[in-house]
Order: sequence, then structure tokens, then C-alpha cells
Amino acid sequence: MTTLVKKDFIYEGKAKRLYTTDDSKYVIVEYKDSFTAFNGQKKATMSGKGVLNNNISSKLFTLLKEKGVDSHFVERIDETHQLVKRVKIVPLEVIVRNIATGSLCKRLGVEDGLKLAWPLFEMCYKDDDLGDPFIIEDHALLFGWATKDEIDKIKEISLKVNEILKEYFADKNVVLVDFKLEFGKDTDGNLILADEISPDTCRFWDSSTGDHLDKDRFRKDLGDVLGAYREIWKRISA
Amino acid sequence: MTTLVKKDFIYEGKAKRLYTTDDSKYVIVEYKDSFTAFNGQKKATMSGKGVLNNNISSKLFTLLKEKGVDSHFVERIDETHQLVKRVKIVPLEVIVRNIATGSLCKRLGVEDGLKLAWPLFEMCYKDDDLGDPFIIEDHALLFGWATKDEIDKIKEISLKVNEILKEYFADKNVVLVDFKLEFGKDTDGNLILADEISPDTCRFWDSSTGDHLDKDRFRKDLGDVLGAYREIWKRISA
Repeated sequence: MTTLVKKDFIYEGKAKRLYTTDDSKYVIVEYKDSFTAFNGQKKATMSGKGVLNNNISSKLFTLLKEKGVDSHFVERIDETHQLVKRVKIVPLEVIVRNIATGSLCKRLGVEDGLKLAWPLFEMCYKDDDLGDPFIIEDHALLFGWATKDEIDKIKEISLKVNEILKEYFADKNVVLVDFKLEFGKDTDGNLILADEISPDTCRFWDSSTGDHLDKDRFRKDLGDVLGAYREIWKRISA
Repeated sequence: MTTLVKKDFIYEGKAKRLYTTDDSKYVIVEYKDSFTAFNGQKKATMSGKGVLNNNISSKLFTLLKEKGVDSHFVERIDETHQLVKRVKIVPLEVIVRNIATGSLCKRLGVEDGLKLAWPLFEMCYKDDDLGDPFIIEDHALLFGWATKDEIDKIKEISLKVNEILKEYFADKNVVLVDFKLEFGKDTDGNLILADEISPDTCRFWDSSTGDHLDKDRFRKDLGDVLGAYREIWKRISA
């Protein structure tokens, strides 16, 4: 168990707060109870959400570490806090999709629920003011957002994460539809997985009923949002 | 000179009309006097525009053919008509950029006028209702819009067209900023360049003054739109 404690506030994001520790290589993440969707246009707070996402994310980062995927995650400290490695975030948001749904279908007129013949790897430029625009590799290279080596490694890790989580969730009667990842460089310059992995960043469908067990319940006003998060936690902590 | 004449009307696009001929392998294109921008939201008609674009496009397709780039273009018939091979259009719009401007800068927050370190090749899914959304190669492959071989060939031809036209226009004191291409398969199944190449589909900047000599004059209400088209025709027909 860490002896590092929260020191100075660094940054507040949509779902988490960051704090320094006495060791410059590590920061503490606090998971908040807030929900946001549509680039911050829709907002809500639900008590207990931070605890669930901290639990789920800690569990999934631990699983990935066991399977050889390194991340910023060090340990879960308490109900809402994680100790993580300090990273400089690569300004890309990666999306891996196994089934077409959401913005992909809206943008490209593709049938909702279409099973993709292979996992689709997409990248967005991480910039809230621009609405995280969809990009191709050459944009990232030409505008200096990442190097070719970094993108190759990000793609390789992302597809590996997909294989691990898809299989893991299939065992829990959950379909991993798609998810978002972020990456960062730690203080030693290593490119590693960062951010969180939770029902905020993944689409989970119940394998039997097709029920949404993720943030789509909030986006689409389907009700019982936290119940879905609790159900995911129940299945993976069983 | 062809003996083929206009027969039945097939299709009316934003800037051209298509007609059958007595030979099912060929169709006749009529260049219209109409301007459209922003996916058809802004419209105008200017007498003489069709003649200019027919002239310019015929000249550029002829130049490309001389340099080994095959296209649907067969010959200019008269002021507003071209004889072209009948093709089945691949539902992709290709954009090649040498300098960042327009929608690219708006979408990605990139400096307008930035010279790109290498030509940027982008693809959109050709669908007016969806606003021709920007895509990656995997979208085209997964949703059956083109095969890997077709995309490889389209990219190769597009970059070759860029090299040829960039050099050609540099000699005319014109910077080729970016352009859009479309491709089709002729009745023998060959993938060839189609559509048109004109100030409607290219951005041309005067090398000395930076003046826009293209459809941006219409998009941005810069005035003397046809004067710019005439200037391009004057420089390449000199």
C-alpha cells in the first residue's frame, strides 16, 4: 500500500481530478460522481459513480497488467482514489470498435449493431474546443501530435487490449462493443496506457438481452444509469 | 472528332448533366453554369462558367493523359460538352492537399496557409445526405465502398496527379493548394480518374499575390468569381 498522499491540486477533467504527490513520478487520481456527454453539453451528478468507476477501472487495469499491457495504473488507494504514474498525455483519443453503433453509424449511415469483420481502429485529435475531431494517421504526423513509432505502438496496444477485454467480458456475458483509450508518456519516456477503462469509456451490451450497461444509458436517457455500472462491477468482481 | 451525339438524359449533378450516346461505353457530359458550395446550401448561376470549366477540365485531362494518367475523358465536343467513358463511380471523394486551408484548418485548428511537409491524402465517403463524411481506409473496406487494391491504386494515381499538376501550375505562376478527385470503373472494369478538374475542384493561389483563383471566391464572396476562372484558363491556354 502506498504511503503517498494527495498534495496539490493539478487539474480537473470531466470525470476525474488530479493531484500531485511527494514523488514527482506519481500523481493521485480522484474519480468524481459527475456524468458528461456530447462534449460536455449534457451533465449530471450521481452519488456513488466515482466509487464504481474507480473499482471497475482498477480491476481492468490490473487484469491488463497481468496480461502484459503496461499502464499508468499503480494501485487503488481507497474508494475514489488511484495512484498512477505521472504521464504527459498524447493528444489522441483512440477508439476500437467491434460492433458499429453511436457516432459511427450517424456519421457514415451504417446500420446500427452491424458486427464488424475485424476490429476498427480510429483516432481523434484530443481537443474539446474542436469536438475531438476524427483524424487519419497523416494528420497526427504532419501536425506533430504523435510520431509514426508512437502511433504503431498505440495501435498494437489498443488491439491487444481489445482482444483481452473482449474475451474477459464474453465470459461475464457482456459484449464489448467499443471503447476509447488514451495514452501517455511516463517520466522515463515510456508510452503507456492512461486515463480510465470503465462504463464511461466502453460500450457494454448484455450478451443475452442486449441491454446497455454503460454511459449510453445516460446519453439516451434510458434510466437506471448507476444500476448498469453496478451490474458491470458485480459481474467482474464476482 | 466524335460522331456520337446526346441521346437520353441520365442524371443532373450540381455542376454537370449526363446523357447517353448510341455507344453504351460512352456518355456525354454537359458543364452547367451553376455554382454550389457548402454541400448545396449556397447556390448561384453565372453565364459562361460551364464553358470555362469544360475548357479547363478538357485541357487538364489531356495533359494528364499525355503524362500517363488515364481518365474517363475522351474529347471536348463543343463549348459545354465533353465525350467521356461511362464509369461506375467509386463512392469516395479524394482530397490531396499541399497547403493547409479551408475545412482542414477549421476541423483541426491548424494554421491557415501552413505548407505541408508532404502531400496529404484524405478520403471522404461520397454521400450528400451525410455531408460527404471524412473516413479512414478501414471504413471503406469494412463497409464495402472500395477494395484495398482500388484504394492503393486511387492513392497512387492521386499523388501522381498532384505531382504533375503542381509542377504544371507552378510554371503558370499558380500554386496548387489542394484538389478533389473522383474515380470510376469503366465498362471494361478499369479504375480510372473521372469527374472534372477545374477551379470548382482545385484551390489555385496566384504565386505572386496569393489571390484566390478558384471557387473560394464564390464560397467567401470575394467577387469577380468568373474573372478568376478566366484567369486560370488564360494562363493554361497561353
